[in-house]
Amino acid sequence: MRSGRGARSGRVPDAAVRRLPVYLRVLEDLRQREIDIVSSAELARRTGFSSEQIRKDLTYFGAFGTRGVGYRTETLSIQLREILGLDREVPAALVGAGNLGTALARYNILRHRDVRIVGIFDNDPQKVGTSIEGVPILATDDLEKVVPEQGIRMAVITVPAEAAQEMASRLVQVGVEAILNFSPTQLRVPPGVYVQNIDLSIELRSLAYYVSAGRRQEDMGSTRG
Amino acid sequence: MRSGRGARSGRVPDAAVRRLPVYLRVLEDLRQREIDIVSSAELARRTGFSSEQIRKDLTYFGAFGTRGVGYRTETLSIQLREILGLDREVPAALVGAGNLGTALARYNILRHRDVRIVGIFDNDPQKVGTSIEGVPILATDDLEKVVPEQGIRMAVITVPAEAAQEMASRLVQVGVEAILNFSPTQLRVPPGVYVQNIDLSIELRSLAYYVSAGRRQEDMGSTRG
Repeated sequence: MRSGRGARSGRVPDAAVRRLPVYLRVLEDLRQREIDIVSSAELARRTGFSSEQIRKDLTYFGAFGTRGVGYRTETLSIQLREILGLDREVPAALVGAGNLGTALARYNILRHRDVRIVGIFDNDPQKVGTSIEGVPILATDDLEKVVPEQGIRMAVITVPAEAAQEMASRLVQVGVEAILNFSPTQLRVPPGVYVQNIDLSIELRSLAYYVSAGRRQEDMGSTRG
Repeated sequence: MRSGRGARSGRVPDAAVRRLPVYLRVLEDLRQREIDIVSSAELARRTGFSSEQIRKDLTYFGAFGTRGVGYRTETLSIQLREILGLDREVPAALVGAGNLGTALARYNILRHRDVRIVGIFDNDPQKVGTSIEGVPILATDDLEKVVPEQGIRMAVITVPAEAAQEMASRLVQVGVEAILNFSPTQLRVPPGVYVQNIDLSIELRSLAYYVSAGRRQEDMGSTRG
């Protein structure tokens, strides 16, 4: 996993931005259960991040919470939604309707809250004209027309590695500013465009570290049941 | 995205561990092109991380590289493989052979280098007995038998949220120590087990920040072509 930093991400570390939706989800769950106040210790417990980390992240965006009391779940979740730009629905495109794309689209369309996949593109003529959970699959040739039309600024790329760069360049050309890239390739994008990569082999290889730590202990003679 | 920290991850920050495979991939590409030495500036350019970050990450594991010269690609990639525990093949399980699981399995089985999905489990009788790229899909009932038999310590979970906790608990019970969790739910695992979550809605919501930054500028009057 690695992120290509855009000019706009200047002041606030990307890692902090990526934690905000985790805080937001916990706050929304608490609100649904009509819990009005949450301490930073409780927020830490529920998110898995330390209270210091949470406080530090939130100070990038101004002061929140009351010392000795905690955070108002309603106020903080509204503020986080505004910071993230989720105070209105955000339309997104998905390019690549293979197994991975279909899974992601289905999940998003059925469960989305604010970021919504409204355009799905694929170059397979057998797929074009069909739909995923009611959202039609369009030809990639229609990308230049549909993306601006729908006001799309965000895209998910799940095409094979060799096609990813072309798709990214075309998306950026028509106004896309943020890309979630599942293709195992490093995309070149102009400054100001943000790319977040999710790469299965990178994830699995880093996971091996946590297994190997245990395995080495065994090699040294300690056994587990 | 968020990581449940296991006891074993003690000293080294998880974020540093997650960058190692990115360094490793660049080093392996350089080796394949018979480039023996790489400067930390070049490594920074190719990975997207700063040279300071790279140097700091590597010092967690001992001293590497020669001041003013750089890193030997062969030495450093061997060292990184050892650190990550990738100096031998690492068997992994995949639980959930839906669209997402199928996409991940196919990609891994066709392109894997060291972490290899050797067991695929699903509870759909229509899927059990079929296979993905030659790896048979087994019944989840066989999990307790196959996981220890194959020496599996790592698993990828792509089942629906409501089934994820049961699967995780059963995997941990039979020796799994590291889980890549694609289900949108926070797994409870005992200390010493590492969980890395990948959650599409969290990713999309944080991506919105980079779009909204631009959008707000527009709201304030500046326009783009």
